[in-house]
Amino acid sequence: MEVKNRYTVIKHHIEDAPKESNFELKTEAFALSLEPESDDIIVKNLYISIDPYQLNRMKSFNSSQGTISFSVPIIPGETIDGAVIGKVVASGNAKFQKDDLVLGVFTWAEYSLVKEGNIIRKIESTEFPLSYHLGVLGFNGLSAYAGFFELCKPLKGEKVFVSTAAGAVGSIVGQYAKLLGCYVVGCAGSQKKVALLKEKLGFDDAFNYKEETDLNSTLKRYFPEGIDVYFDNVGGEMLEAAVTNMKVFGRVAICGVISEYTSDGKKASPNTLDIVYKRINIRGFLAADFLNVFEDFYTKTSDYIRTGKLKMIEDLSSGMESIPSAFVGLFKGDNIGKKVISLA
Amino acid sequence: MEVKNRYTVIKHHIEDAPKESNFELKTEAFALSLEPESDDIIVKNLYISIDPYQLNRMKSFNSSQGTISFSVPIIPGETIDGAVIGKVVASGNAKFQKDDLVLGVFTWAEYSLVKEGNIIRKIESTEFPLSYHLGVLGFNGLSAYAGFFELCKPLKGEKVFVSTAAGAVGSIVGQYAKLLGCYVVGCAGSQKKVALLKEKLGFDDAFNYKEETDLNSTLKRYFPEGIDVYFDNVGGEMLEAAVTNMKVFGRVAICGVISEYTSDGKKASPNTLDIVYKRINIRGFLAADFLNVFEDFYTKTSDYIRTGKLKMIEDLSSGMESIPSAFVGLFKGDNIGKKVISLA
Repeated sequence: MEVKNRYTVIKHHIEDAPKESNFELKTEAFALSLEPESDDIIVKNLYISIDPYQLNRMKSFNSSQGTISFSVPIIPGETIDGAVIGKVVASGNAKFQKDDLVLGVFTWAEYSLVKEGNIIRKIESTEFPLSYHLGVLGFNGLSAYAGFFELCKPLKGEKVFVSTAAGAVGSIVGQYAKLLGCYVVGCAGSQKKVALLKEKLGFDDAFNYKEETDLNSTLKRYFPEGIDVYFDNVGGEMLEAAVTNMKVFGRVAICGVISEYTSDGKKASPNTLDIVYKRINIRGFLAADFLNVFEDFYTKTSDYIRTGKLKMIEDLSSGMESIPSAFVGLFKGDNIGKKVISLA
Repeated sequence: MEVKNRYTVIKHHIEDAPKESNFELKTEAFALSLEPESDDIIVKNLYISIDPYQLNRMKSFNSSQGTISFSVPIIPGETIDGAVIGKVVASGNAKFQKDDLVLGVFTWAEYSLVKEGNIIRKIESTEFPLSYHLGVLGFNGLSAYAGFFELCKPLKGEKVFVSTAAGAVGSIVGQYAKLLGCYVVGCAGSQKKVALLKEKLGFDDAFNYKEETDLNSTLKRYFPEGIDVYFDNVGGEMLEAAVTNMKVFGRVAICGVISEYTSDGKKASPNTLDIVYKRINIRGFLAADFLNVFEDFYTKTSDYIRTGKLKMIEDLSSGMESIPSAFVGLFKGDNIGKKVISLA
């Protein structure tokens, strides 16, 4: 049997803030059956994770930069891979049966032809909404858990600052920090998000950075005694202001630097004298390096959700057509919580 | 008995590159005997350590900066404290006898009146030149040891880059790295220093940064596979280039940022995307936090010196009059190795 499979591509490399017109929805004929000797798996995609880091893969990298390229580049006109949850339609692999629910690195498409190595795991439990496995119980949750607990080694009572606190990762970091007994302030880009942080997610305080003119003073107001832990999702001026307001032996985990992903973003220039004299530790990290704590993360986080101590904030859009606006919206702060495309 | 004691002061706060005219040599009447009830110690100073960090204490700090002030400020017209080695002239304290050699935080002066708390330790052994206890066997050595071994946790065979490699700390870091079996490249500001690094200190390679036009390309040339450990003494553009050329899981220890101590210095703006994707760890530190490893450091380093495996590079000037030019010279790269004023 053959279907029309729709998939999303970029038309060209993207250097600046992405626009919907950068994307195109393509259609291909797609066989729902496998060749007899194939050990691949065909998956019907149900939920597609939309993440800011993908923009870094959409840039063109020229070799003169001296930097490593940021993971595997996305090629204009070709399928885009990312975290997806789907249902197995056909399998040439004994480990996967028809109707299995699988999480893996599939494509921004209605159907994906998948190698075994691209399947991260089967989702056996339906206790939680499926999409949670892309967010709070997936890589966003692991990013929050590993970056906060493993890198920052926070102590009860410490002062924690989280940027893009109403985003997929920040919203979880802030809740972890509260559960540990920290004082937590988040920043976000709208009053609605600020209200969410304070009223629904239990942050001690929150502010709308767009209403602030001097971030140094803002952070001084919220942290008169200084910041112990800064969980950074934005980079730029917020990172500078946070470093200025850190306490001695402060720790910064850089999960992402969304304000610097586009070429017009101001690059962070944190005060190195502060870094030396306050013995600040700044670390970049990727959740993928912390698969060794996945079980621990998953067990604890499931318990927190089950007992209502941790809330997943999701922002769902429907259908392949919604991918461009969903992705572009990430960089305009449109989403509240984890952005997911539902194809279910 | 009373002597004329000469001491050095700053005339006013110093914001830019220091000039000799910023300093003044003052004279005061100074009693070489103590009041009967005093438990202080009078020290005749023999060697004064001249260190770049003192410039940060000579600045004026206004409270609006939001930063902590960098240790205790130096006040114009008043004595300047720093690491000094001296001989006890008179003591009201049973722990210290006349003619004891002591290392501590005394003043840039011929004589200092000292509280017990300002004496770090007696120097019991005369196996090494006294001045070594200000450099390779003192805080410079401890900075090199702690920053390199404790923070960077280097492995044999790793690629190590050291800036101001012919300076008091860098010259020791490079030698430690070679003793561990690392590949070590240093940068310095003259051909004479570069020759010293390669011919006397055993660096695998070295370059004169003043002859380089594009530090990114320079580091790419010396580290085609990337840098594992960067021991930073300068900050600024060198820090940016090093981060760009780091390998994944690279470590940066920031010991000092001499290029940023003056207000006209370009502030480092390391690529945060590199920090995230390469999981770079950047840490500032102060040697004073690592007194717990002092014994270990001292024993190993003494052995290395004794067996000729580690060389102390000193740059001695004579007399109180030489302090301004010695200090100013630090920021022009005049010194080769540890700058010490000898009053002996």
